[in-house]
Amino acid sequence: MALDDAALDTLFRNARTVWDFTDEPVTDEVLQALYDLVKLGPTSANCSPARFVFVRTPEAKEKLKPALSAGNIEKTMAAPLTVIIAQDAQFYLKLPELFPAVDAKSWFSGNPDLAEDTAFRNATLQGGYFILAARALGLACGPMSGFDKKKVEGAFFAKSGWKANFLINLGYAKPAAETAPRLPKLGFEEATLFV
Amino acid sequence: MALDDAALDTLFRNARTVWDFTDEPVTDEVLQALYDLVKLGPTSANCSPARFVFVRTPEAKEKLKPALSAGNIEKTMAAPLTVIIAQDAQFYLKLPELFPAVDAKSWFSGNPDLAEDTAFRNATLQGGYFILAARALGLACGPMSGFDKKKVEGAFFAKSGWKANFLINLGYAKPAAETAPRLPKLGFEEATLFV
Repeated sequence: MALDDAALDTLFRNARTVWDFTDEPVTDEVLQALYDLVKLGPTSANCSPARFVFVRTPEAKEKLKPALSAGNIEKTMAAPLTVIIAQDAQFYLKLPELFPAVDAKSWFSGNPDLAEDTAFRNATLQGGYFILAARALGLACGPMSGFDKKKVEGAFFAKSGWKANFLINLGYAKPAAETAPRLPKLGFEEATLFV
Repeated sequence: MALDDAALDTLFRNARTVWDFTDEPVTDEVLQALYDLVKLGPTSANCSPARFVFVRTPEAKEKLKPALSAGNIEKTMAAPLTVIIAQDAQFYLKLPELFPAVDAKSWFSGNPDLAEDTAFRNATLQGGYFILAARALGLACGPMSGFDKKKVEGAFFAKSGWKANFLINLGYAKPAAETAPRLPKLGFEEATLFV
């Protein structure tokens, strides 16, 4: 059942944050296949709060541009597609459908702090699944936190009330794509603890 | 470069949240191999805020028990190992080592809201990488949000100040492990948006 070394290389060891993509577009079919994997990743009570917003047209990119940190503008405008990983603050309205066994909606409907915490945690998990599922399908990701959330929400989510979490530039890496250098990582003893 | 169907099945399609594990222990060697994959997943400015706390001995399990929601006690006590996915609130003190190119520490040292948001987002992403990396190594996960964070922090993190994010029961699934039923998922049109 375990994956072979080539698959682990694709997902983790050889995978890198990529900023330099080919011109190959990310098609609707690929995005559907990607979502069909991502949606299967576990979330608390199957709450599935993430919303994946695809910024692909030049017009949509221009609308995103004023929200980007200076260092993220050029690479985002050049990427085939940028995904806004967002969360639906009212995700719990779908719980009667997603988790029919109990009245999970009531856990959140009168508890905005728990709802916000749950939406943020689980949409972020789904964002993590998105990055690894994209790599599994041969795509490359350039995730970014450097942007103005309020501007993104004002530009795209004024009606839906969705919250912006992070961004991912998405496409196919050039054979010799420019990648950020592999930075040092915390050792096992620094990042883990046996209690 | 894309993974084959068998690997996608292991990671996503056939993977399930598991509560019923074999008695096979999760060894230190396996945890090291798992961490060596997880640490490679991308985080913002390589900030790597997650801390992975391994609750494996009966004594440590007893210490965790009072923090668990009623529905999570029995399965957690029976699991070979429980991981507390935590974050170091002072993760930014390691940025001079992890991201030496710029003074990233100063982005966070005077901005507790940004530090908390960044720690939560990136540790959660690392928790997502942990779940998929565990599956990639043939392990099975039972992630849980149903516990009292303050009690976990009081029991385990009084000195370190780490924050509890979520829990994962970890082990090897029984051949016919009891799994939660596959619940309905949001359709592509519900969870995605082209702008």
